[in-house]
Order: sequence, then structure tokens, then C-alpha cells
Amino acid sequence: MSTYKAPLNDMRFALYDVIGVEAAFQKMGFDDASRDILDAILDEGARFTETVLSPLNEVGDREGCKHDKATGAVTTPTGFKQAYAQYVDGGWAGLTASTESGGQGLPHAAGVPIKEMIDAANLAWGNFPLLSHGATEALVQHGSDWQQDVFLKPLVEGRWTGTMCLTEPHCGTDLGLLKTRAEPQQDGSYSITGTKIFITAGDHDFTDNILHLVLARLPDAPAGSKGISLFIVPKIQVGTDGTLGEPNAVRCGSLEHKMGIHGSATCVMNFDGAQGWLVGKPHKGLMGMFTMMNTARLAVGLQGLGLSDRALQNALRYSRDRLQMRALSGTQFPDKPADPIIVHPDVRRMLLTCKSLVEGGRVMGYHAALLVDLAHNAPDAAEREQADALLGFMTPIVKACLTEWGVECTYHALQCFGGHGYIAEHGMEQLARDARITTLYEGTTGIQALDLLGRKVMQLQGAGLRVFLGMIEQFCSENASHPAAAEFIAPLRAKAGEWQQLTMQIGQRAVANADEVGAAAYDYLMYSGYVSLAYWWARSVVASDTSAYPEAFRAGKREAARFYFARILPRTLAHASAIGGGAATLLALDAEAFDA
Amino acid sequence: MSTYKAPLNDMRFALYDVIGVEAAFQKMGFDDASRDILDAILDEGARFTETVLSPLNEVGDREGCKHDKATGAVTTPTGFKQAYAQYVDGGWAGLTASTESGGQGLPHAAGVPIKEMIDAANLAWGNFPLLSHGATEALVQHGSDWQQDVFLKPLVEGRWTGTMCLTEPHCGTDLGLLKTRAEPQQDGSYSITGTKIFITAGDHDFTDNILHLVLARLPDAPAGSKGISLFIVPKIQVGTDGTLGEPNAVRCGSLEHKMGIHGSATCVMNFDGAQGWLVGKPHKGLMGMFTMMNTARLAVGLQGLGLSDRALQNALRYSRDRLQMRALSGTQFPDKPADPIIVHPDVRRMLLTCKSLVEGGRVMGYHAALLVDLAHNAPDAAEREQADALLGFMTPIVKACLTEWGVECTYHALQCFGGHGYIAEHGMEQLARDARITTLYEGTTGIQALDLLGRKVMQLQGAGLRVFLGMIEQFCSENASHPAAAEFIAPLRAKAGEWQQLTMQIGQRAVANADEVGAAAYDYLMYSGYVSLAYWWARSVVASDTSAYPEAFRAGKREAARFYFARILPRTLAHASAIGGGAATLLALDAEAFDA
Repeated sequence: MSTYKAPLNDMRFALYDVIGVEAAFQKMGFDDASRDILDAILDEGARFTETVLSPLNEVGDREGCKHDKATGAVTTPTGFKQAYAQYVDGGWAGLTASTESGGQGLPHAAGVPIKEMIDAANLAWGNFPLLSHGATEALVQHGSDWQQDVFLKPLVEGRWTGTMCLTEPHCGTDLGLLKTRAEPQQDGSYSITGTKIFITAGDHDFTDNILHLVLARLPDAPAGSKGISLFIVPKIQVGTDGTLGEPNAVRCGSLEHKMGIHGSATCVMNFDGAQGWLVGKPHKGLMGMFTMMNTARLAVGLQGLGLSDRALQNALRYSRDRLQMRALSGTQFPDKPADPIIVHPDVRRMLLTCKSLVEGGRVMGYHAALLVDLAHNAPDAAEREQADALLGFMTPIVKACLTEWGVECTYHALQCFGGHGYIAEHGMEQLARDARITTLYEGTTGIQALDLLGRKVMQLQGAGLRVFLGMIEQFCSENASHPAAAEFIAPLRAKAGEWQQLTMQIGQRAVANADEVGAAAYDYLMYSGYVSLAYWWARSVVASDTSAYPEAFRAGKREAARFYFARILPRTLAHASAIGGGAATLLALDAEAFDA
Repeated sequence: MSTYKAPLNDMRFALYDVIGVEAAFQKMGFDDASRDILDAILDEGARFTETVLSPLNEVGDREGCKHDKATGAVTTPTGFKQAYAQYVDGGWAGLTASTESGGQGLPHAAGVPIKEMIDAANLAWGNFPLLSHGATEALVQHGSDWQQDVFLKPLVEGRWTGTMCLTEPHCGTDLGLLKTRAEPQQDGSYSITGTKIFITAGDHDFTDNILHLVLARLPDAPAGSKGISLFIVPKIQVGTDGTLGEPNAVRCGSLEHKMGIHGSATCVMNFDGAQGWLVGKPHKGLMGMFTMMNTARLAVGLQGLGLSDRALQNALRYSRDRLQMRALSGTQFPDKPADPIIVHPDVRRMLLTCKSLVEGGRVMGYHAALLVDLAHNAPDAAEREQADALLGFMTPIVKACLTEWGVECTYHALQCFGGHGYIAEHGMEQLARDARITTLYEGTTGIQALDLLGRKVMQLQGAGLRVFLGMIEQFCSENASHPAAAEFIAPLRAKAGEWQQLTMQIGQRAVANADEVGAAAYDYLMYSGYVSLAYWWARSVVASDTSAYPEAFRAGKREAARFYFARILPRTLAHASAIGGGAATLLALDAEAFDA
């Protein structure tokens, strides 16, 4: 079985020393988010996730969820429901929701390490409360007064949970194709009919009610994605005055059998004239959904991060314990029958790859979370605007890179175990299977890439990239002769310059041929992720260069940064070169000739 | 469910047109291996694997093998046993074994496409007959006369199967640590006692007897890997005159629960004073085992190839059928509600990555198989020696690269399905889970890398590399102005030169520090694989440039080669740059400081 210990030390380092959340929170008026309080929350989060959620991780994988065909009811794995009750009692559900809606009003960035812990401890379980946050966001931004009055409090307190009902059998990415219908009723509600698939936490036994946020078409809807409206459809009917009614005509038709996250209920949901309420304006449903999706995308990025960290922790333990062969350069532990495998350079390559992607990725993910706060709460309008542009730019990078790296890190960590990694009892293969969903849901990596290059760079003319390049340049200027970080400044500056050039080149080619965007998107996304991480690693070296940290910690940051610059950042060479291949290398072949 | 159709067209192209097996077989005196006969075997292999094995692939995954604790007996999934009977009846077991031992005497390279079909159709099933080939090899090369008389025929005919019993709980890669004991008995046999783990096909219900090839220590054995002997331990005792005796004191203690290949029986085998016979000389067992392992390593490479091809076939079908979004450059199918996703450049990137790795990898794998034949049967001694050197050099590359690409291709193919790829019913996730074992067993990728760089390049002074570089240079000279291939000659030549330089640089650094070999090994291995594939792609373009193939096929080769050179070969930049990072970037950090 794999184990998990919240990496509190590194989480604090990322939050306080690299990103500097204390000053940022203070500036934004989060008076309750002092370091004392944050530390207490982190400690308590570690206790909850390590002792309550983590032991249920393997149980969830083995048991899975169960579905009663007769009633449509879903039963979660042993212990999941009790763990959720503890989560609600502990006040975790509303940690970062506003105090007006019953939350604790902490900044978004304060909740993110807790999110990471939950995902690392038990990804499948974490999927149940996950989408409540998106539903809350959608209601806060688009809900009417009565909807906010009636739905927000139980959602924020965790008494009810939320879902996002987008996908239908014939449409996933292309929501314009969706068929679910909404007929207006005399009482102002709508009758919702259709089938949604891949609905995470579509049914469960945690709470009395579940709020489905559903995309559907009104009778007068224009075709395509401009004719989609957003509805809230409770499992138990809820009137405009908040009184509960009959069970609604919505039920789980079946559960999907999946590669991993067995403990997470992935439901086919049948809406059969279910009572729903319009959220926001007619035909403007996609906007509400994007509100939910951006939150969810950052959250899925953290899932990749959490799994990577858990995988690394276990690979590190195994590599220190497992005795096999002698170091090529000479025996290191003559008193043992063989040396621990961590002496072998190739095992270290795998471990350092994980360490550099996990610790660098942590800073990247937490910084994006701080941007969410700054975009809403920075005192200065220009700063809010800058944060918003950078957040939009970073969201697809964080989502795609942290999840691709999640697949990669769980691969390396399993590989450190040799054949034992393939055996269920070590728990490493579960992490690899669980990680595999993260590059698919909430938009595949390819979709993130199009969002980044097509929308955030091309359509928005690179506003977010400019902000980020400015940050890099400022950092480089300030630290050109920093005793610990100087060695990274020139390569970082060179990469930043190359990034800008590459962006311009793609832009120029895209003018002639729109397919150049799609052809460059994936490699541009990964390229961007690696350059971003180089920046965060250089900043991490500066931040760790203080007597507050013992030499071993500082060495860990310094050597991981050196490893990263020498052995991971060169992947940008391959990505840049691939981009140079252009659209022709992808489009020349007829679809029929692929297997002619 | 995923489907499989043997890619006969491309297999024939690789065999006949790129590698030119016809002339090679003729030169070696394989008179029965004419094109007519080979074609008939390929057709029949396709029929058997497509109609018998492939439909059982999902059954095996779902049912797995069952173990009876009371008797130790293993029951295979529904249909597996009957399929094996058909395999034996069809004469597949002894296809490439010598006629003297009851086989059909076909060259090794003629059996390899059949092996690929079996793996693609049903990897778990393919593992049952797989190790019989290694056991046959070991007996042919190291067995005494009576052992060959008694054991070879049933093995070659498939009436019995073989296993390789190497691994013990505390030793996998490091066989020097193994503890299983062999006590000499008065009748010339040995009493074998110990526990072996990860024994593929250690027990099953296919055949009456199973021959375990077991590594164990004699009482006077020196410590470490120089004190290991090889024994043959039948499930049912066999006397020196071939008479069957009592059930032997060997049984399956339990089955492992694994990430994939559920239909394959991975056994803990308990030897409790079992009767065994020494194969070869005392304390020279590793040599016999390496005979088996080299065969098995090439075979595992083909497993990666087979899974990649099956994954690609299904991704291609789905990408042509699935309608989602419009092409960025304009609607391509106005009569449909959306365009098929194969119009999107990023989907094509994934498909072309698979196509270039599968079809190029096929040529690479088949060529290595031909080297096996040439190393034994080439009429000229110098040619045999050259083939042997090149085979030794290519074996770790074929094993590691085809399996790493297997993981990658099953990843991309699943990704083409979006969220549906994660759902069991599409069968893509099984391919990804099954592929994951191939980079672990028969030596992890890291072990292949050390074999390549430490042994085949450093110890053997690059003999195999020199042969291969000579082939590349000859090809480049001959095709510098080839109408279809000329564009690839300069980049290929440049890479070959860089490969040679890189090898020399590592060699120079390794003189000062043996850890430089371990530090460079993985990246050197992958670098070598990508440059090798560039050569095979350039040759494929030349071979396809004939009127014998329709333009669509030729375009498929040409455009895949262009894609490969433009978008995959640049990975060598990252690998070369990472090698430049040297050992210091891996070894500087104290083992304790990884998570300080």
C-alpha cells in the first residue's frame, strides 16, 4: 500500500517564501489569513487527510461505488460517507467561500494546499466535494437572489453537493452539439429532459440533496453553442422559497467502469422532465459553465500535483530501502548485501525528475491560485486586470502540465519499484491509473493547448504572456549577481527571449493558415510549462537562500534546480523544433492514407 | 472493446521490401522460407490471432486467472486453454525451432510477425507460450544429450511449456543475491528448495507438464553471481530416460494482482525439495539464463510494438468516426453536424506519432530478428560476427524503445478517445495497463540502458555501433540524390555523426568517473533509438518508392517520415543536452536531502 504524508515544510516554503502570500493576503484585506491561522489550518489538514482520507484510498479502489438499478441510488465505498461527515464537521467545505454565503472567507490560495492534500490522500474521494466549488462559483456569479438565498448556504456548508452536467454521449468538447431540452413551465421552472454522461458525483450517499448544474437548450434556442442555457436541477425538488419537495425526475442510470478512480462515482444521469431553474440569462449558459470550468481546471491541475507527490514519496522510501547491485563507482554500503538503489544514477534521474516537477509545479499551482485572489481582490484595478490576464494565460498551462507531469511522475515512481511497481499491493499502479484521468477530464491536454495558444495568446494578443515575461525580466535584473541563483539567470533570460520569438513566429504563420495554431498548440503549451517552471525554480533557489532553512533543504532546492536546468529544461529544444515543423507535417496526409 | 486486424500489408513491406528477408533467407539456406510459404503463414497467423486470440483479450482481462489454494492449481480464463490447443494443432509452437528438435525449421525472422500478431491480439495469452522459446534455446545451447532428447520435443511441439525462474523476493536485477538452494542427490539429480516470484506461466491448465528453468546455488557455490547454476525442474518428474514420475515438489503459492495482463498467470513458485537436473556447468547458470533473456528481451520489445499497433488501429477508427468541432481552417464536412476529429492537427499529431513509432519500430524489430538468424547462419564468418555484434547492440535498444513507445502510443491512442478512453468498454485503457509491464519485465528500461552503454558500447568498444554507423553511411552515400529520400540524407548523416561524437564524449568522461556511464545511459539509449528509427524511416521511403505500391501507401511512408524527422527526431536534442548535464547533476544531492 502506498502511504502519504503532507509535505508541510515544502508547502509553507512555496506559500510564504516563494510566492509571499502573507503580504499579498494582507494587502487584499484578508485579515483572518495570518500565518498563525494558515499554519494551524495546514496542520489540521495534514491530520485529516493523512489519518482519515489516505487509509481509504486503497479501499475505494478495491470496492468502487455500487449502483442499485432499481432505485438508481449510488453507494460509496466503505468509510467514504463517514469521512465526508468529518470533512463537513471540520468546516473544510466552506474554507474559501465568502462569509456571506456561510463560508470562512479565506483566500483561494489558502485552500489550495488543502486541496492538494486531499487529492494526494484520496483522489477518488476528493472528487465528491470538488464540483461543489464550481457550482458555488456559478451561483455567486450568475444566480438570481433567490437562488443564492436557497442554494448557496447548504452548498457552502457541505450539506449538499454540486455537479457539472455538460457531456452527452455524442458531445464532449463540442458542446454546441448537445441535445438536452428545457421546456418552460407555468411556475417559472423548466422541465429538463436528456441524458448526460461522465457526471462526477452524479449520485452518492453523502448528502440529502445534490444540485446538478445542467446545460440544456430552450425551445427557441439558436443552433450550436450560442443556444445553450444553464439550469440548476436538484435531486430533491427545491422551491423558490427553499422548501423541499418531491424527489426530482433525475436519476443515475448506470456507473462507468473505469481505468482508475474507482471510488469516484462517474454517472450516466437521466433527466426525465426534471424540474430545473434557469441560472443566468437564456442562451448564455456557456459563460456560466466557463466560470465553473476555470475553477475546475486549476483544481484538476492540483490533482496531478498531489498524485505526483504521493508517488514520489513512496518511490523515495522504496529507493532508500531496496538493496540491489553496487554503485558503479564502488560499494557504498559494505556492511549490507547490496547498496540501496538510490545510489544508482538512473534511479536518481527518475527521483529528481519527480522532485523537480513536483516542487516546481507546486509553486506554479499555488501562484495561479493567488492570481485568482488578486484578480478579484487586489486593491488596484490595474493589478486586478494584470492578474486576470495572467490567470487566464496560466490556467491551461497549470491544468495541462501538472496533469501530464502527474502521468509522468507516477510512471517514474512506479518504475523505481521495478516489477513490484506493477503489483497492486504496493499501490503504485493505482496512482498511475488514477493519474490517467487528469489529462482527459475538464478538457484534454489538446483542448488546453488550443485554449492557451488560440484564445489566450492569439485572440487576447498575448496579454498574459507579456505580464509573465515582465515578471521574469524583473526577477532576472534583480538577481543577476545573486550568490545562489546567478547561474540560472542567463539561461532563464535566453529561454524567455526564445519564448517571445516563438510566439511571434507562430502568430505570423497563423495569419496565413489558421491550422498553424492547432499544429503548434501542444508543443507550445509544453514549452511554456517548462519555461515557466524554470522561472519558479530560479525563484525557489533565491527564496531558499536564507538561514531560516537548514543546509540540506537549501541543497535540495539548489541541486534540483541545477538538475532541472540541465536535464529537463532541454525538452524545450525538442518542442521548439517540433513547432518549427509547422502544420504541413501534420496535414499533408489524407485521412484515408494513414493505414493505406 | 478494442479490435485488431493484422497489418499484413505493412508487415510484408517491412520484411520483403525494407529488410529484404527473401535474399537473406536464401543465402542462409532456408529453402523452405520462400515468399509463397511466408505469405501463407502470415495469412494463417492473421486468421488465428484475429478470430481466436483477439476476442479473448477482454475476457482475459475481466476474468483473470484463478488459483486453488488447496492444490496450487491455476485455472486460466475462459477460452484460453482451447485457444492454446488450436495453437499447438496449427503447428505454431515449433515454427522457428529446428527440424531436429521437431520444429519447422523456419528462420527466426519469419516467426516475428506472428509473435507481433499474438501480442497485439492478446498479450496476456501470448505470455504462456512465450518462455517456451527461451527454455528451448537454453536447452539447445547448454543441455546435455539426454536433456535434449527428453525435453526438447514436447517443448517444441507445445505439449509442455517452459518458465524462467530467476527473481526472488529480495532480488530481481541483482541475481547475485539469490538464495534458492540445490542439493546433489545420489541419482544425479538435485533437490531444489526456495521461493521464486513473478514467474510468468508458472502454473496453468494448458499442458500436462511444465518445465521450470531455475537459478539456484550449489552447496559449494561461491558468493554472488558467480555461484549460480541453472536447473531444469519439471512440474511432473521426468527421469533421464524420459519416463514420467510423480508430481514434483513445486507448486504455485499464489497469483499476483497486477495492473494489467490479468489473463497472464504471474506466480509465486515454491520449490520444496523438488527434483531438478543441472543444465550446463556448475556455477555457470547466468550464461544459460542470458541465452534465454536475450531472446525474451527482443520478444518483449515486440509486445510493445504489438500493443502500439492495436492502440493506433483503434484510435484511427475512432478519430475517423467521432464528430466533434469544425476544422480551424474551415468546415470540411458541411453535411455532418461536426467534422471527424481526424481533421484536427493535434489529433493528427498523436496519430502520426503512433504511426511513425509503430511502422518504424516494426522495421527495427524485424531487422533485429533477422540479425538473430544471420548471427547463427550467415555463410560468412565475418558476417556472423558482425551480425552478432550488431544484435548485441540493438537488443537493449529494441527492448527498451519499443516498450517505452508502447507506453507512449497507448497513451496517445487513449487520449484520442477523450474521456471515453478512460472507460473500460472501449478497451483502450486495458492496452495502456497491459503495456505498462513491458518496460519493467525482462530488465527495466534503466537496465537495458546500462547493458547498452556499459556493456555493448564501453566494454565491447562500440563494435555494434560501428557496424550500424557503417550501414547508415553506406545508405546515405547510395541515396544522396534519391528522388524521394534525398531530403532525409543530410539530417540523418548529421545525426549519425553526432551519435559518434556523443559516444566518444561519454567514453572520455567515464574514464574519470564510472558513474558517468549510469548518468548518461538512459538518455543515450533513447537517443540511439531515435537515430536508429530515422535510418529505418529513410530506408522505408526508399523501399516504398516503387510502382508496386499505390500512391496512398507511398504517401503514408513519405509523410510519416517527414513527420518523424520534423517532430520526433528533435527529441534527440533534449537527450543529447541532458547527457551533457553529466553525473554531477544526479549525484550531488545526499540521499537524505531529497525531501529535507
